[in-house]
Amino acid sequence: MSSLLTMNQLTNEEIFMILEDAEQYRLGKGWKPSNMLFVSNLFFEPSTRTRFSFEVAEKKLGLEVLNFSSEHSSVQKGETLYDTIKTLESIGAHAVVIRHQNDHFFEDLIGKVSIPIINAGDGCGHHPTQSLLDLLTIKQEFGGFKDLTVSIHGDIRHSRVARSNAEVLIRLGANVLFSGPSEWHDPLNIHGKYVDVDEAIEKSDVVMLLRIQHERHDQKTSVENYLAQYGLTKEREKQMKNHAIIMHPAPVNRGVEIESDLIECGRSRIFKQMENGVFARMAVLKRAFQQSKQKQEVIKHVICS
Amino acid sequence: MSSLLTMNQLTNEEIFMILEDAEQYRLGKGWKPSNMLFVSNLFFEPSTRTRFSFEVAEKKLGLEVLNFSSEHSSVQKGETLYDTIKTLESIGAHAVVIRHQNDHFFEDLIGKVSIPIINAGDGCGHHPTQSLLDLLTIKQEFGGFKDLTVSIHGDIRHSRVARSNAEVLIRLGANVLFSGPSEWHDPLNIHGKYVDVDEAIEKSDVVMLLRIQHERHDQKTSVENYLAQYGLTKEREKQMKNHAIIMHPAPVNRGVEIESDLIECGRSRIFKQMENGVFARMAVLKRAFQQSKQKQEVIKHVICS
Amino acid sequence: MSSLLTMNQLTNEEIFMILEDAEQYRLGKGWKPSNMLFVSNLFFEPSTRTRFSFEVAEKKLGLEVLNFSSEHSSVQKGETLYDTIKTLESIGAHAVVIRHQNDHFFEDLIGKVSIPIINAGDGCGHHPTQSLLDLLTIKQEFGGFKDLTVSIHGDIRHSRVARSNAEVLIRLGANVLFSGPSEWHDPLNIHGKYVDVDEAIEKSDVVMLLRIQHERHDQKTSVENYLAQYGLTKEREKQMKNHAIIMHPAPVNRGVEIESDLIECGRSRIFKQMENGVFARMAVLKRAFQQSKQKQEVIKHVICS
Repeated sequence: MSSLLTMNQLTNEEIFMILEDAEQYRLGKGWKPSNMLFVSNLFFEPSTRTRFSFEVAEKKLGLEVLNFSSEHSSVQKGETLYDTIKTLESIGAHAVVIRHQNDHFFEDLIGKVSIPIINAGDGCGHHPTQSLLDLLTIKQEFGGFKDLTVSIHGDIRHSRVARSNAEVLIRLGANVLFSGPSEWHDPLNIHGKYVDVDEAIEKSDVVMLLRIQHERHDQKTSVENYLAQYGLTKEREKQMKNHAIIMHPAPVNRGVEIESDLIECGRSRIFKQMENGVFARMAVLKRAFQQSKQKQEVIKHVICS
Repeated sequence: MSSLLTMNQLTNEEIFMILEDAEQYRLGKGWKPSNMLFVSNLFFEPSTRTRFSFEVAEKKLGLEVLNFSSEHSSVQKGETLYDTIKTLESIGAHAVVIRHQNDHFFEDLIGKVSIPIINAGDGCGHHPTQSLLDLLTIKQEFGGFKDLTVSIHGDIRHSRVARSNAEVLIRLGANVLFSGPSEWHDPLNIHGKYVDVDEAIEKSDVVMLLRIQHERHDQKTSVENYLAQYGLTKEREKQMKNHAIIMHPAPVNRGVEIESDLIECGRSRIFKQMENGVFARMAVLKRAFQQSKQKQEVIKHVICS
Repeated sequence: MSSLLTMNQLTNEEIFMILEDAEQYRLGKGWKPSNMLFVSNLFFEPSTRTRFSFEVAEKKLGLEVLNFSSEHSSVQKGETLYDTIKTLESIGAHAVVIRHQNDHFFEDLIGKVSIPIINAGDGCGHHPTQSLLDLLTIKQEFGGFKDLTVSIHGDIRHSRVARSNAEVLIRLGANVLFSGPSEWHDPLNIHGKYVDVDEAIEKSDVVMLLRIQHERHDQKTSVENYLAQYGLTKEREKQMKNHAIIMHPAPVNRGVEIESDLIECGRSRIFKQMENGVFARMAVLKRAFQQSKQKQEVIKHVICS
């Protein structure tokens, strides 16, 4: 199966293979299919980074892009996600990239759709390509994951990133710390230890901030004191280890999760993460096409430099 | 004139030529213009199949695609359809594909616009590329149309498909039956005979279901008993001739026009129709450019295999 | 700096160089970068001409296009324009084209963003590529600007076009007249002389009409008597000099700024302006990439014919 739905489905070996491919793309290596392959991007939620990151990745791989937007589609006439994807498959899509507001939207599709599905974020569930780009950023910095301490700060409970990352970091040998308001602790996420924000920051090699996702909360959380209580202030930044880095999946709420001036400071890898997103997604797309059994006849890819 | 506005404008010979071209595209034949040609897709109504089918067809032909969406355009400032198309023509579009909510939207454009217009559905009026893909699907199955019995089921009155298909099927030698609630009979569509649903299904080589178009009805039709009274149930499917096939333009209202399990049954050509849509539209686009008199200087096309 | 934000930043020599390049593109000359360059089009306001004109220009130059629409983006989650553009830059955009409702939106970006920004219209402020296409249209007609009389008619106060054009026409040696309702006079625009509509039309080599921008006015201006009082009627058209031409940035309010039949009359250059828009924008894009210092490594362009 060449879909990518959750990080759980990837072995450590597969993860390292994707990271290696991504690194090669960063260094300028190319891969192009020898025939015309169509990828459809279905984003049912607003997105800038993920959506354009996939589009750039697709175009760099020489793939043809079909940008689907639900409000101009037959979803308006009540068409289901399954029927929409079967339609795109019939019309000629060789893979689909989907961001959807429902957790585990893909469960209704597994085994029924014969083209690869790449999960670009499902509700509060998973976001595997974000995890991969985060891993790539950490690996570029530290060479690996073993014995690193990564602290994840903020809205653990509603975060796709926290969920995907904590599990995989533990699996790769890192220590994970969680920090944030107690109402956002996640009893189902057992991969990290909850500590105080200052302790987390002092101990970390990677300080990974999460976005306060106003759009997922029923009542707007008071953000007034968030920075002082839980966020990364300039004072806290001074307590970080010398070599420690700052990460954030963005979009950043400036002055909430992090003091605005720190976003582009020397330790910040926030924009580096976005750059890496393109390379990670190129690797995931290539994997989708290479392993795609049902469509094997269409591939005949060539490696070019 | 290289536009395609209604099926009426095509002779039987032209129809067979388009179907033959479409079949060649299905078999992998290519056609590419030697210079850059732009096609603009203007969809004033939601669409998945037709819209992406055209986009894939255009890209397979090597055409450059301009996706126009009315809500981001100067239509918001009151610009007319005529002015919009003249604008796109001035900017460099070599053809336009239009779906519009108004019946016969193209009447204001005929003779005034010098680039080909392809009708991708006008209100309750015509939908010629849907007819062509339906014909292609039937021809693949039966080799031709003479003496076939095709029954069209459902909302005859509001259906672009019923209108386009009934006329052309009669012209090509088929018998057409209509079936459905009496309030949806169409006194203006004189190309078929109204019969009971069970009689229609038993007699048909092709059972062509129509979508109940909630979005075109002022008050929502009760769909509760529709399946039992007028739809294709598993019981009715058993009464079909051995070789008979099921067609539906989609999107399907599962459990309304047809029992959900039948959508992907052995007789169903519903997803096959979508595949054929791309090839039929490639043929229509090629015809538009080949016959385009006013823009003849830009063509200089090459046939490639 | 290879951005184009206002006409003020261009010397006369640079203007003539852009016009010369545009003319070469009109005559069929090509320019293609040797590597893949991405341009993102960010339109925060509806647009047909400017938006598609840029897209066609980009594709003719062989650039990869990323069409950004704010309502599907993280702007919905509160992301700022600066962060959006830094994101697109990180993801791989080599230039951005922006239309924005805020005057001088670009002031927050200057010096902070290292890719070129092309202003495709800011609020009631500037619209330099519209000025350039207007200049190109005038130059094609008269060979130059010296001692021409250009009258600008209508909503001087709210018009990006009036502002950009008046300044540059004066600078290039033309005389500028303004005409229109006194409530739309612009005390800040000192580049022209206000005269009566009939005087303006009789004296002009170029009658440049502006659009009444209902969407920028708090209360809808009465347009009932506008044509008779201030617009270009057939009677007034007869008073124009023999060689004089009519221009309008469009979309035209037919029967308001101009009598409908005149839009495509022999003197009208309204659709010619749209054609020229593509060539002017090609020249501006090429300039952006050629002068782009920070990204110089990516260019290595080739000139092809």
